[in-house]
Amino acid sequence: MSIVLASQSPRRKELLAQMGLEFEIIPAKGEEKADPSLPPAEYVQQLSLQKAAEVARRCAPDDVVIGADTIVVLDGQILGKPRDAAHAFEMLSGLSGRCHTVYTGLALLRGGEQRLDAVATQVRFRSLTEQEILAYIATGEPMDKAGAYGIQGMGALLVDSIQGDFYNVVGLPVCRLGRMLARFGIKIL
Amino acid sequence: MSIVLASQSPRRKELLAQMGLEFEIIPAKGEEKADPSLPPAEYVQQLSLQKAAEVARRCAPDDVVIGADTIVVLDGQILGKPRDAAHAFEMLSGLSGRCHTVYTGLALLRGGEQRLDAVATQVRFRSLTEQEILAYIATGEPMDKAGAYGIQGMGALLVDSIQGDFYNVVGLPVCRLGRMLARFGIKIL
Repeated sequence: MSIVLASQSPRRKELLAQMGLEFEIIPAKGEEKADPSLPPAEYVQQLSLQKAAEVARRCAPDDVVIGADTIVVLDGQILGKPRDAAHAFEMLSGLSGRCHTVYTGLALLRGGEQRLDAVATQVRFRSLTEQEILAYIATGEPMDKAGAYGIQGMGALLVDSIQGDFYNVVGLPVCRLGRMLARFGIKIL
Repeated sequence: MSIVLASQSPRRKELLAQMGLEFEIIPAKGEEKADPSLPPAEYVQQLSLQKAAEVARRCAPDDVVIGADTIVVLDGQILGKPRDAAHAFEMLSGLSGRCHTVYTGLALLRGGEQRLDAVATQVRFRSLTEQEILAYIATGEPMDKAGAYGIQGMGALLVDSIQGDFYNVVGLPVCRLGRMLARFGIKIL
C-alpha cells in the first residue's frame, strides 16, 4: 500500500512531507474540467476527484490516492493563474483592501472507496498601493499562483488576516486531510 | 545601517529571511520580566521592548533593532513552554476542542526612536484524543514551544482554524512588521 499524491505542486509535496508521511507523486495527465457555475466547494471537489481518478487508474487497488485543487474566489468570480504581469496587476488590484475566499477540494480514492471534501478559508488583503503591487509582481512570485499571490512567500506581506485553515490557502488543508486519512486507517498522530 | 533581530528563534529568522530582508541576529542577554497581570497585548510589548533595548545598547545608533515576544493565552492564563511531557500533556488537553489567543509583541528601535505594537490571533484546536496528544508529544515538537505546539509543524494537524495573522502564531506577524519597517524608511515591497 502506498499513499499517492496526484499533484505536481511543490507546495503540496512540502506540506505532506511536513506531516511526516511517506508518499509517491504521480501527477494527473490531461486537463480537468468542471462547470464553473457550480458552487465553488463542489467545483473544486469535482476537479480534485478527476485528478485522483485519473491517477488511480495507474495505481494498485490498495493505494490511497490524494487529489486536490485550489481556487481563489472574489465576488463569485474564480481567479486562476495570471496570464502575464498586466493580468497579475489586475487581480492584485481587485484583491487589495478586500476579503476573498480560497477553496481547496480533496478527493481520496482507494479501490472502489471514495471520500470527497472541500475547505474554505477567508483571506483579507490590506490596502495596497500601485507601487507595492508592481514591486510584488517584480519578485516573480505571482505568476504561477491562483489569484496571483503566495501566502507562504512575500505574499505574506499583503495579507492582513485569514479566517480558517492557513494551509488551505497554501493548497492543502492538512488538518482536514489528516482526518480523512484516519478514516482510511492511516493514522498520522 | 543594519537590521538586527534581537531573537534567537530559528522560526523568526526564517520568516525575516522569507521577506527577502538582510539582517543580523543578536540575541538579547538576561531574562525579560513584565507584570503578568498586564493585559496580554501590553505584556508582550513590554517583553519585546526589553529584548530590543538590551540589544540596541550594543548596536550602532542608526541600526534598526527588532524585538519580539510571543505568548499563548487560554482563559486569561499565559501558557509558556512546557517543563516536561506531563506538562505538555496538561497544556494540550486544555487547548483541545477550544479557542485560545496567541499574542506577539513587536518593538522596533533606532537611536531614540521607538515603535511598539502587538498582534493577536485566535486559534481553534480540534478535539484531540489522549492517544493523539501522546503521539504528538512523542514527536518531540511540543517541548520548546509556548503552549506546547508548533503550527508550522505536525501541530498543523491539531488546528482546525485560525482568525488573524498565521505568522503571528509562528512568532512574527510579518505583515504588521513590514508596515512598521516602512515607517522607518525600510521598504520591503
